Amino acid sequence: MLSFTFLKYMDVAPRISGLLSQRKCSGLPSRCASMFRVPFTADRYNVRRRDYAKLSEDDLRVFRDIVGDSGVVTGPEDLEFYNVDWLRICRGQSTVALRPKTTQQLSDILKHCNTRKLAVCPQGGNTGLVGGSVPVFDEVVLSLNLMNHIESLDTVSGTLISQAGAVLETLENYASERGRVVPLDLGAKGSCQIGGNVATNAGGLRFLRYGSLHSNVLGLETVLADGTILPFGTNMRKDNTGYHLHHSFIGSEGTLGVITQVALLCPPKPSSVSLCFLGLNSFEDVLKCYDETSKALTDILSAFEFLDTECYTTSYQEHNVSPPLKPFPFYVMIEVSGWNAEGDTNRVSSLVETLMNKNLVIHGTIVNEPSHMLSLWKIREGVAEALTRRGYVYKYDLSIPKREMYNLVEDVRKRMGSSVESCSGYGHLGDNNLHLNIVTKDYYPEVTKQLEPYIFEWTRKHKGSVSAEHGLGFKKRNVMQYSQSPQAIKLMQRMKELYDPNGILNPYKVLPDSFPS
Amino acid sequence: MLSFTFLKYMDVAPRISGLLSQRKCSGLPSRCASMFRVPFTADRYNVRRRDYAKLSEDDLRVFRDIVGDSGVVTGPEDLEFYNVDWLRICRGQSTVALRPKTTQQLSDILKHCNTRKLAVCPQGGNTGLVGGSVPVFDEVVLSLNLMNHIESLDTVSGTLISQAGAVLETLENYASERGRVVPLDLGAKGSCQIGGNVATNAGGLRFLRYGSLHSNVLGLETVLADGTILPFGTNMRKDNTGYHLHHSFIGSEGTLGVITQVALLCPPKPSSVSLCFLGLNSFEDVLKCYDETSKALTDILSAFEFLDTECYTTSYQEHNVSPPLKPFPFYVMIEVSGWNAEGDTNRVSSLVETLMNKNLVIHGTIVNEPSHMLSLWKIREGVAEALTRRGYVYKYDLSIPKREMYNLVEDVRKRMGSSVESCSGYGHLGDNNLHLNIVTKDYYPEVTKQLEPYIFEWTRKHKGSVSAEHGLGFKKRNVMQYSQSPQAIKLMQRMKELYDPNGILNPYKVLPDSFPS
Repeated sequence: MLSFTFLKYMDVAPRISGLLSQRKCSGLPSRCASMFRVPFTADRYNVRRRDYAKLSEDDLRVFRDIVGDSGVVTGPEDLEFYNVDWLRICRGQSTVALRPKTTQQLSDILKHCNTRKLAVCPQGGNTGLVGGSVPVFDEVVLSLNLMNHIESLDTVSGTLISQAGAVLETLENYASERGRVVPLDLGAKGSCQIGGNVATNAGGLRFLRYGSLHSNVLGLETVLADGTILPFGTNMRKDNTGYHLHHSFIGSEGTLGVITQVALLCPPKPSSVSLCFLGLNSFEDVLKCYDETSKALTDILSAFEFLDTECYTTSYQEHNVSPPLKPFPFYVMIEVSGWNAEGDTNRVSSLVETLMNKNLVIHGTIVNEPSHMLSLWKIREGVAEALTRRGYVYKYDLSIPKREMYNLVEDVRKRMGSSVESCSGYGHLGDNNLHLNIVTKDYYPEVTKQLEPYIFEWTRKHKGSVSAEHGLGFKKRNVMQYSQSPQAIKLMQRMKELYDPNGILNPYKVLPDSFPS
Repeated sequence: MLSFTFLKYMDVAPRISGLLSQRKCSGLPSRCASMFRVPFTADRYNVRRRDYAKLSEDDLRVFRDIVGDSGVVTGPEDLEFYNVDWLRICRGQSTVALRPKTTQQLSDILKHCNTRKLAVCPQGGNTGLVGGSVPVFDEVVLSLNLMNHIESLDTVSGTLISQAGAVLETLENYASERGRVVPLDLGAKGSCQIGGNVATNAGGLRFLRYGSLHSNVLGLETVLADGTILPFGTNMRKDNTGYHLHHSFIGSEGTLGVITQVALLCPPKPSSVSLCFLGLNSFEDVLKCYDETSKALTDILSAFEFLDTECYTTSYQEHNVSPPLKPFPFYVMIEVSGWNAEGDTNRVSSLVETLMNKNLVIHGTIVNEPSHMLSLWKIREGVAEALTRRGYVYKYDLSIPKREMYNLVEDVRKRMGSSVESCSGYGHLGDNNLHLNIVTKDYYPEVTKQLEPYIFEWTRKHKGSVSAEHGLGFKKRNVMQYSQSPQAIKLMQRMKELYDPNGILNPYKVLPDSFPS
């Protein structure tokens, strides 16, 4: 079997035990937090405040009447948590964060803000990667943190009902205990919230198996800018009674309404899961490996991820753990989930043997003990944080046809040469989703000018998307036109005017600063 | 094995050979066509024409300039095809049907109609069951029949690109030849069109496996009422660049825009399919059978349908075929699809044996030869047409929690007594979708009054949907409020005004005649 090490149930866990915990509610990558103060978004990116009202003492009195003293956060240190994003790239200047507990309280807040023309920034777990979840100026932060009650899970239909502020990992455990699986898995699951996930149409690791949130969200309770509560519809899997309004909030990033409750379809929990971590010599081999895998494991494949050597090395070095495999140009993670432990294991083993015989895979490991799988997953999930520890990260989250995907990384690497610390790629190959990351010691606007619009034009040329799963938020709001037609952008603008005529909801996000005429 | 007949590869095909062909483009159930003239919808249902312009000779000249003489249908006999729905319940009074070949032609037509305030009825295969696809008065019929070019299928990503007028069955064959499956299967597939399917968010037999069209439509090209063409976006599986506009057209039944091209995700085609047709003694046993099946076959289950004895008997009698099983109170059809022929077959056999040992299944058959499966499916798919041959059918397409579902059929049967010919139920149990049908010799408004709002109130009480998969169209437009809140209906009305300010697109459909204030 060549040099392949077939380490079933191998003891990887202790070697990776020092690995980061998932993004926690502090919202601050651990090492960076103390290193520097994040500049104001408005200054760093040169943004002009729009014509909203300014918060007054009267407003604060109204808010205290609605949510009580404890629901109104005004201390500067406490506000740091709400003003700075997880990547520590964006900083707002809000002087108040509100923490309603009920939909009615949230509605009352919005009604007041809309009447007063106070801008509002809805916020979930604040783990977004495009600056969409923090204010840009002095928007009122509307935190969903206290709206985290899980209502029910119908184990016959699989319908989970929860308030929007429930943390994804908490939901996952709740569903798992009841024989179901949440059809969404993210590195940020320890602190991201289901409402924020839906608002950004988060993708993640299980997308390949369960599809997007448009597939799995059966209904939403939302509150419009003027305080109108749109209650749940029927939450039945099939309901064709008029326009399917809840889909308009999926991926709207809090600019059309605030999601307060979610009805989510949770599929039955597979009884058997296995994970391969494989080393390969080239991206060409990664593609061939995907072709073989998708044919052999179609029905049980639940993830197909790749990392280049830069991502892999940075992750294990920054998290101070021993690497599970020796250095290779590329790594692939293949996860299968099914209901036939023995049969599935045999199919995976047989596939890996085939891949080795074809010299596509050189070295690797297969594990199926949960803690071992978790440890391997953390290398993949730890990449984003590890890169932020090396400096300022220029992040690009792109959909590009598989065959072209890594050419972009190589083109950018060549283009930037030694002017950057690193240029690396990883992502959800099965979904055509590349995460391209360029790191410099600090933020340099001239590096951005070298990268943009080059990367966006490259992506458009290959008919890809300039935001696959992160959304546009603040940082990508002005690149929409690389993936959307002027006609579509114009209609989006009119939708925004319909749902939020005063434009109070999450301003400076999603829609471009200037609209096509 | 009790009285169970295990007829693998049994010879059912010849016995069912006389069974109906699928709904064909004539749009007329074969026997009924000559039997009676369908009354005008406007007269039968007492509708008032809204204030649209009337078609002039000048309009016809403009249309001929756009689509040529052959694209403009004005002969009264030819128009019958466009004015009468498949159920022969609705009849419009249109004096022109237009058959564009390109998106640009269709756009030019709409631009003219919008300027002139001429109402328009977009029409696909005209197989809808709620009168949504035929005009109510003299709307210009905009037929997609000639826009039926299949562009491509990317066998790596599974993305199928097609014009909206392609017939579903043609697409299915096209995909099948390329190792993929269209994630939608309907009894009407021989004449329904993919654009119409998307516009009505059609459900059908594969919903249980592949989910709704919100899961599988990757992108749409659409034309708005004013002629604006909204081109495809990226059609990538992941694209979070702004609002996901194409979802607003899914299920909008041609009232927000006309779908001209579809990008559809086609999953890999399973290599092995089996079908069970089983006889059961009670609906309680049907439910237990579903519980056992969904647990045992979760990963390979692709359909779980039920029929009551009335539906079964009417289908085989009206189509003049020998029944595959003797009379039982209920029948269940279980389809599995996978990639492991032997393993799957063993699991199905084992399940059926369990069901028999528990006395849940009394008699049945398992087939896996394609023509045999097709023959059995035709009994199920032939129910709708068979019932129309018995008289006027009051059709209800409801989502109701499984456990309550058949109670409604029994309640209505009791309520109507001998005043109706029959009251029967069948449907997609796995998706909580009941098709309830009441038949009388002719249309009697007083029967409708006995049935409605009784059935809708019953459904609302059980938190169900009054239109699971058929849409609202003309016939159900005024019952939306049983499944939607006043706030949601109001927002839908405002969406309609945004997308179609002159209200020219498919008037008298979907939205209720009077809106909540």
